[in-house]
Amino acid sequence: MRYRKIPNETIRRLPMYMRGLLLFTNQGLRNVSSQKLADLLHINPHQIRKDLSYFGGFGTRGVGYDVQKLLGEIRSILRLNTSSKAVLVGMGNLGSALLKYPGFGAYGLEITAIFDHDRKKIGRTIKNIKVQDISKISTLKKKNIPLAIITVSASAAQEVADKLVAAGIKGILNFAPYYLDVPKKVKVITIDIAMDLARLPYYLPVSA
Amino acid sequence: MRYRKIPNETIRRLPMYMRGLLLFTNQGLRNVSSQKLADLLHINPHQIRKDLSYFGGFGTRGVGYDVQKLLGEIRSILRLNTSSKAVLVGMGNLGSALLKYPGFGAYGLEITAIFDHDRKKIGRTIKNIKVQDISKISTLKKKNIPLAIITVSASAAQEVADKLVAAGIKGILNFAPYYLDVPKKVKVITIDIAMDLARLPYYLPVSA
Repeated sequence: MRYRKIPNETIRRLPMYMRGLLLFTNQGLRNVSSQKLADLLHINPHQIRKDLSYFGGFGTRGVGYDVQKLLGEIRSILRLNTSSKAVLVGMGNLGSALLKYPGFGAYGLEITAIFDHDRKKIGRTIKNIKVQDISKISTLKKKNIPLAIITVSASAAQEVADKLVAAGIKGILNFAPYYLDVPKKVKVITIDIAMDLARLPYYLPVSA
Repeated sequence: MRYRKIPNETIRRLPMYMRGLLLFTNQGLRNVSSQKLADLLHINPHQIRKDLSYFGGFGTRGVGYDVQKLLGEIRSILRLNTSSKAVLVGMGNLGSALLKYPGFGAYGLEITAIFDHDRKKIGRTIKNIKVQDISKISTLKKKNIPLAIITVSASAAQEVADKLVAAGIKGILNFAPYYLDVPKKVKVITIDIAMDLARLPYYLPVSA
């Protein structure tokens, strides 16, 4: 099932809701109010209700949302039940940090292949995955992996993206500070960590 | 000058606009249309015009926006002219990646102190900054640094946050997969890289 016309900003928040719901699951909660979820995530409860209303609500007045039902629904909307495999290109500090990051599993995401151009890194095994030469990206074609994470330098990013697209990758999470030029059918989300820091001062007290 | 009632989502996009405008500056452009900025950033041009209208527009019909003027205005709104110093706590892979990241300078942001609990790392100098013992966070009090980046493990994050708040930190960029409990006056932005990957499958072709 594919849901249509959900705003990008709602899609951006759905994984946040998912993460909150997973925490409530661990706490043994069966139902949760939008207010409780809002308090945890520091989001307006009205925003949560509006976002969830795009795919039909599911809340019961006075009882709240069924945690497991809502989790399943969000997973289905985000299509996290099917497209879960990702390849990582770039085994520098950031790539290493991502590989160690325990958070992907919660969303059903899994890094299943690693590439780097550094001869010292190629052949090493990290988390049971062998680091392969970047020139071997084309071999992904047979494996039907839909997602890629780029953690190479800005100067190498476009070439890597071209190789990934040629190998059939459909979605790219790009950490390189570079605007990738890819065919329209490929979705790119570029992450600039500095941007997140850059919006913090706005919220500081004026006297600071 | 402080602007009021700008939606959080607009604030979230302003650094993106800034980054695009910096690129246009490097290309020698004096004026830019919302369409051109929209094409670069893969954002709806209407969204850009709406966001910029919150602080008065500045665009001229047929000419577009004055790149330098708009840059200065966004910097002023985000208060990036004043609150630019940040401390980094946690010198693991992610902390190291952040330190090497060239992007902070573009926003006038600067990491000026580093803390870690690992004896092997304490005392080392990285990018001209000496790594200090986490127990020394309290010494920040005198330095009036407003921002902190937390890249420690989930289990250590709350204790680090408490120390930072006690030392006068006003804004925290948190990479630990943990919901920090801090006083309301302290702004926390939590980054979960898995969340960004988790919203990619939604955009993939259904047949993938």
